[in-house]
Amino acid sequence: MGRRNIRVTLAYDGTGFQGWQVQAAGRTVQGELLTALERMHRHPVQLHAAGRTDSGVHAVGQVANFITDIDSIPAERVALALNSLLPQDVRVVDSREVAERFHARYDARRRTYRYYLLTAAVGAPHQRLYSFRLLTQPDVVRLNRLAARFVGIHDFSTFCAPTESSPSKVREVYGASFHVEGGHTVFTISANGFLWRMVRSIVGTLIELESRGAGEEAVSALIDSRDRSRAGTTAPPQGLFLYRVDYDEDAG
Amino acid sequence: MGRRNIRVTLAYDGTGFQGWQVQAAGRTVQGELLTALERMHRHPVQLHAAGRTDSGVHAVGQVANFITDIDSIPAERVALALNSLLPQDVRVVDSREVAERFHARYDARRRTYRYYLLTAAVGAPHQRLYSFRLLTQPDVVRLNRLAARFVGIHDFSTFCAPTESSPSKVREVYGASFHVEGGHTVFTISANGFLWRMVRSIVGTLIELESRGAGEEAVSALIDSRDRSRAGTTAPPQGLFLYRVDYDEDAG
Repeated sequence: MGRRNIRVTLAYDGTGFQGWQVQAAGRTVQGELLTALERMHRHPVQLHAAGRTDSGVHAVGQVANFITDIDSIPAERVALALNSLLPQDVRVVDSREVAERFHARYDARRRTYRYYLLTAAVGAPHQRLYSFRLLTQPDVVRLNRLAARFVGIHDFSTFCAPTESSPSKVREVYGASFHVEGGHTVFTISANGFLWRMVRSIVGTLIELESRGAGEEAVSALIDSRDRSRAGTTAPPQGLFLYRVDYDEDAG
Repeated sequence: MGRRNIRVTLAYDGTGFQGWQVQAAGRTVQGELLTALERMHRHPVQLHAAGRTDSGVHAVGQVANFITDIDSIPAERVALALNSLLPQDVRVVDSREVAERFHARYDARRRTYRYYLLTAAVGAPHQRLYSFRLLTQPDVVRLNRLAARFVGIHDFSTFCAPTESSPSKVREVYGASFHVEGGHTVFTISANGFLWRMVRSIVGTLIELESRGAGEEAVSALIDSRDRSRAGTTAPPQGLFLYRVDYDEDAG
């Protein structure tokens, strides 16, 4: 019986989950997928994902992979098969066969997150689980000037959770900018990898700096300080979406 | 102590509610508002709404009114006071004083609903509670040709729930049309009033007729039949929004 490596692209509504990763208690995205995979395979299956999103964080382009020993389903139809076994708040958007060595986490070259801000005097009930509300509209030009300072190779010790266990806090940010889209102010950030809570810490800090009228040098000073206590308030999870994950052409 | 009639505009996410109207069991929008009003007034308060939305149906422009004997809060700040007492899935968007005779239900001249359709091969987790998914994109020009037949004064017996108790099924539809908006196909319908489930029955019928390639005369034949069993499948509640309610200039 053949073994195939299947890469899936996932979208999920993080509202009803304790994040991606299986935990002792609580509903998780990985847990729902493992249950569906086990029902499909009649034995447990390992599943690797590009990013471990936190509780309440959403995804439209999470990528994961698993090895299947099922011959009877074309790779492209695995999405359909899994969707029939999954709850409505997790969907497999795409499935395809990839090289046996492909690993969704270790081979990811670029991860892109988006953070949705909504400016509204009164909370919008239909947006409350998918955006973070600001009372006044920030200046997008100034935000972009501040955000540009994050681009490049930096030690991001200032912008991660205290419990971050990664030995190196150095990451390369490829792009960080704001744009306006259908009433939202959207922050897009791409990097080779992210520390725990890094995007939410950067967003919270940028909002605070912009509202105080700080200049770009304030961003550089914060990065250089490597002092977590100097970062702004971490923005809440519901505005954050894992937007896409990119791999080398030949990796999958 | 003065009595003022306060008109409020309400937005709510219908997902977590058993509809507008207070029931023996289950969380309702009216119930949440009555609880907040009672906490604010320290006695029960009556509340009248323009439309009694069903379980799962949303609102961005529901209108309601109540009599207050509180002198100390300017009418415009009642919204703020109520929002501090309400759960996040109900928001008071606006509050103002209106003439004592104003009644949100009886004085409403025009009610407008919107229904959001999303065409997608795979369900979109973040849209699932706020739209109805179609597998193939309908032809908006043909939909509009069909929808136009609903405009005017008609007996809508074909397009209501079997339990509709209104003695007359005659309503005047002022406008009924589709447009495309940010990936959604949106149906907007305005009338002097609606029967129970009328919008969802009309939407379901229009989708069916369009997919079958039916002509406009099929719509007129259905209306004329006054036979509920000939209508299409009622579209599900999550795509429906009470969009706005209009009153005569002098009514409030």
